[in-house]
Amino acid sequence: MATETVSISALSAEDVLKHWQGHRALTRGTIEAFPEDKLFEFSVGGMRPFAELAWEFIRMAVPIVDGVATGEWVEYSGAKPENKEDLLALWDKQTRELNQKFPAIPPHRFTEVDKAFGQWEMSGIGTIQYAVDNEIHHRGQGYVYLRALGIGPPHFWER
Amino acid sequence: MATETVSISALSAEDVLKHWQGHRALTRGTIEAFPEDKLFEFSVGGMRPFAELAWEFIRMAVPIVDGVATGEWVEYSGAKPENKEDLLALWDKQTRELNQKFPAIPPHRFTEVDKAFGQWEMSGIGTIQYAVDNEIHHRGQGYVYLRALGIGPPHFWER
Repeated sequence: MATETVSISALSAEDVLKHWQGHRALTRGTIEAFPEDKLFEFSVGGMRPFAELAWEFIRMAVPIVDGVATGEWVEYSGAKPENKEDLLALWDKQTRELNQKFPAIPPHRFTEVDKAFGQWEMSGIGTIQYAVDNEIHHRGQGYVYLRALGIGPPHFWER
Repeated sequence: MATETVSISALSAEDVLKHWQGHRALTRGTIEAFPEDKLFEFSVGGMRPFAELAWEFIRMAVPIVDGVATGEWVEYSGAKPENKEDLLALWDKQTRELNQKFPAIPPHRFTEVDKAFGQWEMSGIGTIQYAVDNEIHHRGQGYVYLRALGIGPPHFWER
């Protein structure tokens, strides 16, 4: 007897964007929870301060969506924010850009394998998922920094 | 003019399991990286030691897949591992159980909204995603513990 194999759709592109933006809202709340000096200077165990981690998220988010959408992988070229206000303003600018650009990703590009930034060979959705997972991972580290500073981080389930 | 709305499938159920098991392999490597006493005792900022976080992942993983598959939400009832060897053995047992049980989730249950453990109202895929995200988040905290102990954690991209 033959066994039928069916690919079951678990997540739509719209779900993926909503999930990511939920996490990005939580990351924004985590940036906000830091006192300005600690955001740029404090860390534990010789790791990067949270502003550096947030800067990594910014350099990944829109450039990855652009790359998945177009097949052209261009490094982020904007200026690095030097204070909390500018960092949050840039965060909010990317929130709007993602909402605009994500729905325009051609459907076949989610499954198509590409070499992101000429280095990481993954499907489009794999690269997007990597960016989201990387943000969750490093934000978790930011939670430890906040706890070590005696500051309660935002609730993980608030998106 | 009418605008056509199309739901674009970004991830199949098979992709979701593969993604989760990749992260679970990394979490296993993180458990292994801890010296036994530090695994059960060390933390930063008054947070839970990594063995407690791993125990939380275990109490979520198979019970959530069972709940999504069947609609019955039963709290994990197994004994709590008291040493690293038992913790890893239980981890590996769940790896096999997830591979067996996940593909048997009825397709409609991924999108169906249910109240997980009588408390959290989400789609099946939303609940599974929450478990994966929670694991990534807390494992990131384990990375800080390891760095604070002077131990290099596994590479994030190794799954």
